[in-house]
Amino acid sequence: MLHDNLSINKEGHLCFAGLDTVLLAKKYGTPLFLIDEDRVRKNARTYINAMRKYFGGDSGPLLASKALCFSEMYRIAASEGMRTDIVSPGELYIAHKSGFPMGRAFFHGNNKTDEDIAYAIECGIGYFVADNREELEEINRVAAKKGIKQKIILRLSPGIDPHTHAKISTGKVDSKFGSAIETGQADEMVQLSLSLENIALDGFHCHIGSQIFECEPFCDAADIMLSYVAHVKESFGFEAKTLNLGGGFGVRYVEEDPYIDYAENIKKIASHVNAKCEALKINKPTVLMEPGRSIVADAGMTLYTVGTVKTITGYKTYVSIDGGMTDNPRYALYQSKYTFEIANKASEEKVLDCTVAGRCCESGDLLGEDVKLQNAERGDILATLVTGAYNYSMSSNYNKIPRPPVVMISGGVDRVAVRRETYADLARLDV
Amino acid sequence: MLHDNLSINKEGHLCFAGLDTVLLAKKYGTPLFLIDEDRVRKNARTYINAMRKYFGGDSGPLLASKALCFSEMYRIAASEGMRTDIVSPGELYIAHKSGFPMGRAFFHGNNKTDEDIAYAIECGIGYFVADNREELEEINRVAAKKGIKQKIILRLSPGIDPHTHAKISTGKVDSKFGSAIETGQADEMVQLSLSLENIALDGFHCHIGSQIFECEPFCDAADIMLSYVAHVKESFGFEAKTLNLGGGFGVRYVEEDPYIDYAENIKKIASHVNAKCEALKINKPTVLMEPGRSIVADAGMTLYTVGTVKTITGYKTYVSIDGGMTDNPRYALYQSKYTFEIANKASEEKVLDCTVAGRCCESGDLLGEDVKLQNAERGDILATLVTGAYNYSMSSNYNKIPRPPVVMISGGVDRVAVRRETYADLARLDV
Repeated sequence: MLHDNLSINKEGHLCFAGLDTVLLAKKYGTPLFLIDEDRVRKNARTYINAMRKYFGGDSGPLLASKALCFSEMYRIAASEGMRTDIVSPGELYIAHKSGFPMGRAFFHGNNKTDEDIAYAIECGIGYFVADNREELEEINRVAAKKGIKQKIILRLSPGIDPHTHAKISTGKVDSKFGSAIETGQADEMVQLSLSLENIALDGFHCHIGSQIFECEPFCDAADIMLSYVAHVKESFGFEAKTLNLGGGFGVRYVEEDPYIDYAENIKKIASHVNAKCEALKINKPTVLMEPGRSIVADAGMTLYTVGTVKTITGYKTYVSIDGGMTDNPRYALYQSKYTFEIANKASEEKVLDCTVAGRCCESGDLLGEDVKLQNAERGDILATLVTGAYNYSMSSNYNKIPRPPVVMISGGVDRVAVRRETYADLARLDV
Repeated sequence: MLHDNLSINKEGHLCFAGLDTVLLAKKYGTPLFLIDEDRVRKNARTYINAMRKYFGGDSGPLLASKALCFSEMYRIAASEGMRTDIVSPGELYIAHKSGFPMGRAFFHGNNKTDEDIAYAIECGIGYFVADNREELEEINRVAAKKGIKQKIILRLSPGIDPHTHAKISTGKVDSKFGSAIETGQADEMVQLSLSLENIALDGFHCHIGSQIFECEPFCDAADIMLSYVAHVKESFGFEAKTLNLGGGFGVRYVEEDPYIDYAENIKKIASHVNAKCEALKINKPTVLMEPGRSIVADAGMTLYTVGTVKTITGYKTYVSIDGGMTDNPRYALYQSKYTFEIANKASEEKVLDCTVAGRCCESGDLLGEDVKLQNAERGDILATLVTGAYNYSMSSNYNKIPRPPVVMISGGVDRVAVRRETYADLARLDV
């Protein structure tokens, strides 16, 4: 099967993290998010161990909160000794409330408000990933008022387009994020950072995109960033201690996607980085990465109940389920491909060519087109595989559809990590 | 300006529904949804009056909940004597809780679950807009148990593509919604409905798409539907009492969009419908329409605070604001065009060519590209015009960004209709 936390039991049911998904659907109802905690930890450790081994020092991965954010995720990340990034005061609030050590949190984003900055400094944020001039000045102002020197790293655009979908490619020069090296704006930001008394510049950050299956774009980005580190050392007398290479390693959503050996890739990037540092005569920085998708995606699954199966003679068959773009807007947004299984018929052959449609009153509410599926009928449990990243976190209440609960599985035991939203929850902000 | 509830006061500030938007932003904070209640009622009355006058009888518009759904909207619709459609048990819950008369509610959707059907019948839903065989049988089963005859209308696909964006065009044969007339599946549904003892078929429904500026597609749809009514009368001895022509009238989002005289369009469609009924020798049905967008869109505005203004030399300028795809995903989903104004500089010339970027940690989080704007700087208030439809209702907590409040304005007085989500709200479902 697509990932090794998937199997089929003797009843012919799809199992996830060792548990029968049909029984889980019955126990918790549908739609239902499942998160394989053991897989989250295993994926995290792959990064932690490989980065420590090959990059050395205190190098390691950050949890990219935005991919999957709720209290328990911060507890897990903290227990694995990970750092985290956060991209909003809301994520900061939840991390802080969950007991995540704030000194190990990095505050990201292209637009931090004055209130965000004050709140983050109040909570003892470790680092800002500073994006622009306006926020640098505000961070400096608040830090001065508080009498501290606030650590930051600067987000830069290395000018690399790893040829993924335009919407999820962020390292090219024309981006809302960061400052471009090639236009000279990175230099201006370095100069400003070094001139501000209550700012402690610690290093640099870049993020080249998402769903990248090759190693080379990361090596290219590291090249550009390390050359820039050398340039800054020579021009401004500042040597970066931290280099954050962002996230972006691809994940297998469908059988056609390649396998990635993350540890092997990290080894290759590290050997590239180490050689480059030597050639440039700069100290090896602490290297950070921000794997969101590749830590949580294959740790997730969504279960639905099939409602209507509608064959339009001469056209196609629509299999409608009790969720859709409200819990997974990625097909509507990016035409992202997923693998689907009828969980209670997982051992049967896939004989049905169909479109999987959500329940929203919107034609674009589809989860997949040209999908191969076991024969489907009302009451079947449909599983979408590899939904750990950007599904729960992007879910909405469009059509006033409540968000599904998140059930975590660890050591073969299931527990609720986020409870199901109720109809009453949907109206509680209404006056 | 784009609509006549917009003006500029002597301070050069943008006014909406007679109130200074800069003062509203200060009073409630940003991001902020504003809804002009008087405009909602005025738009609703345009439909109510024109449909009564030209279609006659009990014809009238339904409120299309999904476009803008919260308790106060149902109270307004009820006070105007409107019917409503609802597309989920969540919308049903809120309508019911708000005191909306359930007998005047129509339950829509391509996939109603058994639980939804039971709940709706329990609440005394007026009509199901029945979509498919499975739900017809379930409605019949529950109605039988309850000893009632449940009224339904059947959703049909007339096979019209009004040439709007594929994702929001729903009347063509290849659709997850309804049963196609041309494939014979509509006939099967009629036969089934008439054969089920606890189902009372009342008429038919179609919806051809959205943002349609011409009258002709509606006349074409009416033609097909009325011919079908005549066919069903002849073939099955059932004459439809209700014909629901769905929604779809366009709305002016940008200056390039045409003006629509809704009343005039209704007059034209009605005269077409009346002539057709005469020609076909069928009784004039009660005609319903489901204007969502054209009732609420121009009654809405979103206010943001500008954070970063970043000019990338040789490329473009990004104006980042404190909201984005979380409160308005329509640009990310459909590249929908909006009109933007710097509210505190509304009388100044638009000299800045820019991209308006949201605050999400996602490159695709943009609200508009190639936008003309007054000179923008941190702290300015940016207004997106015409956001009443599918903005609040599609909002999410991606990046753990709290949803903005909805402030309603009536008779020059502002009040909170939906309060701002807090950080604590974001974590309340977490275990």
